[in-house]
Amino acid sequence: MPELRRDPITGRWIIISTDRGKRPSDFSRGVENTAGNKCPFCLGNEAMTPSEIVGYGDSGRSRNAANWRVRVIPNKFPALAIEGTLNRQGDGMYDRMNGLGAHEIIIESPHHDRDIFDLSDKDVENILWAYRDRILDLKKDIRLEYILIFKNHGSAAGATLAHPHSQLIATPVVPKRVREEVNGGKIYFDYKERCGFCDIIKQELSFGQRVVAENDDFVALCPFASRFPFEVWVLPKNHSSDFNEIEEHQVVNLAVMMKSVVGKLMRTLDNPSYNYLIHTAPLKESHLPHYHWHIEIIPKLTRVAGFEWGSGFYINPTAPEEAAQFLRDVE
Amino acid sequence: MPELRRDPITGRWIIISTDRGKRPSDFSRGVENTAGNKCPFCLGNEAMTPSEIVGYGDSGRSRNAANWRVRVIPNKFPALAIEGTLNRQGDGMYDRMNGLGAHEIIIESPHHDRDIFDLSDKDVENILWAYRDRILDLKKDIRLEYILIFKNHGSAAGATLAHPHSQLIATPVVPKRVREEVNGGKIYFDYKERCGFCDIIKQELSFGQRVVAENDDFVALCPFASRFPFEVWVLPKNHSSDFNEIEEHQVVNLAVMMKSVVGKLMRTLDNPSYNYLIHTAPLKESHLPHYHWHIEIIPKLTRVAGFEWGSGFYINPTAPEEAAQFLRDVE
Repeated sequence: MPELRRDPITGRWIIISTDRGKRPSDFSRGVENTAGNKCPFCLGNEAMTPSEIVGYGDSGRSRNAANWRVRVIPNKFPALAIEGTLNRQGDGMYDRMNGLGAHEIIIESPHHDRDIFDLSDKDVENILWAYRDRILDLKKDIRLEYILIFKNHGSAAGATLAHPHSQLIATPVVPKRVREEVNGGKIYFDYKERCGFCDIIKQELSFGQRVVAENDDFVALCPFASRFPFEVWVLPKNHSSDFNEIEEHQVVNLAVMMKSVVGKLMRTLDNPSYNYLIHTAPLKESHLPHYHWHIEIIPKLTRVAGFEWGSGFYINPTAPEEAAQFLRDVE
Repeated sequence: MPELRRDPITGRWIIISTDRGKRPSDFSRGVENTAGNKCPFCLGNEAMTPSEIVGYGDSGRSRNAANWRVRVIPNKFPALAIEGTLNRQGDGMYDRMNGLGAHEIIIESPHHDRDIFDLSDKDVENILWAYRDRILDLKKDIRLEYILIFKNHGSAAGATLAHPHSQLIATPVVPKRVREEVNGGKIYFDYKERCGFCDIIKQELSFGQRVVAENDDFVALCPFASRFPFEVWVLPKNHSSDFNEIEEHQVVNLAVMMKSVVGKLMRTLDNPSYNYLIHTAPLKESHLPHYHWHIEIIPKLTRVAGFEWGSGFYINPTAPEEAAQFLRDVE
């Protein structure tokens, strides 16, 4: 069973994924990219994966059948395991608990070589509904505190399979980064009596220089304090702390926005590896006036080095104003 | 001039290094490795670098002469600049200040293809004295709050030049990671009336299973909550919060320890890229009973992916007990 361990000084939790148990010679470097009968995520290879949790396709489709558009499966090598109890315990001065949680794969398309920007609007909407539905389902498990949905595309972004997919990891503690954002949002709200993210959207739309794209429901912008070159955040214009409460017109507009922004990054930066991730409120803290869900998109252009590991500072060699200009100008 | 910008929600500062001003086509991927007359850090090419700050070599050596063993120079493309004032200011709802600080290179050897483990003990001691001396000198500048010394070795660790070197970045704010450690150490101390790092050393030496190596002054161990596979920390056995107060016998023993640990990582993991960094107390907070300087060594075997960026959690596929066993067993 995987194990959660707490750093005794900083309180940071980490996951020891003993099931993966990597020995020195096991660290490979690259993405497996074998389409056709070798790829477990390709159409027709449904039997190569664990049995699906949910599939989106023709109505009346039977479980694990081949006529799917989006398919959600348990990760075969999960970072956290769904069975058991937390069993918090000490170990001398240290603290540990069982690595309880969930780790699922959202296969975004039956086609091996498509990415989000060359899927149909409808297909991308299905992916977003899959994200929403999985949160609603897992939210019922009271042992879970957070669900992080994320995508690794390309080897520099940590992908190990090339077939387009995103992932979901549900954790039994609220992750540090999310806690920092929620707490920071609270401090801002207590001082201003306004949501800080709503203020950002207002200021950015009025300045314009860091805005990448906009539609009725969403704005895409390069944040003022971008950690990475060409980092883009997509935020809903209407205040909401909970991604899982997204409405149908928002799903339609978010699909268009994600296709557009990822497409712009691909064309501007010559098909970079990238990550995106959804930040939403912790499962047991919904309807927060001080938090605002959003998607962070991070193209992998630079490497995190000793200075960043040691300081938590990031050095960004491209001002977000310039990045936004390039992204606005492309196609 | 580079600029420091503060994230309005989390308070995280980032550096916009506008002098580097990278356009989309400027992101290269790899290490420049041209020895001989092309490498600015090689012996005889002293004129290719900015004039040295300090050089260690034969006594009576003149500045920028070729008979050096360790050489400290200003970074030609500094992330932070030494001239000017902070000039903290608002920008609508945002906060920024000038990117004031220092960015120096410590060239570790005149030889292009050596690394720390195949230098003589004396040469490594010189590197450590250079670190110490630079901190003592820069500490006089009251505009600075922290000095981070770190090394990027290999392209996966963010190095851009192959010639062995480490770096120093002095910042006008205490970095977030350091603040978290110092504050966490304080909380532990307030509760236990003991230094948490001293407790870690005691528990690890008595358990033994995560200890990699030990000598009179230092212990090397894989931390209980290692973020990365084969992460190793080197800690002085005697309590001290300030690296710059290191004594001569400690420098001798630290040189031996660093050579041994980096050598073990190289042999166990087939010459991985790696980072190391020194965590020491903030410049204006010396002699802390609750903080303990140490060196963190991180081999680059896995890639940081969407889950880590979004959560601040790390997934470590190798238990530190196993990593320590492999490292103890080699040579």
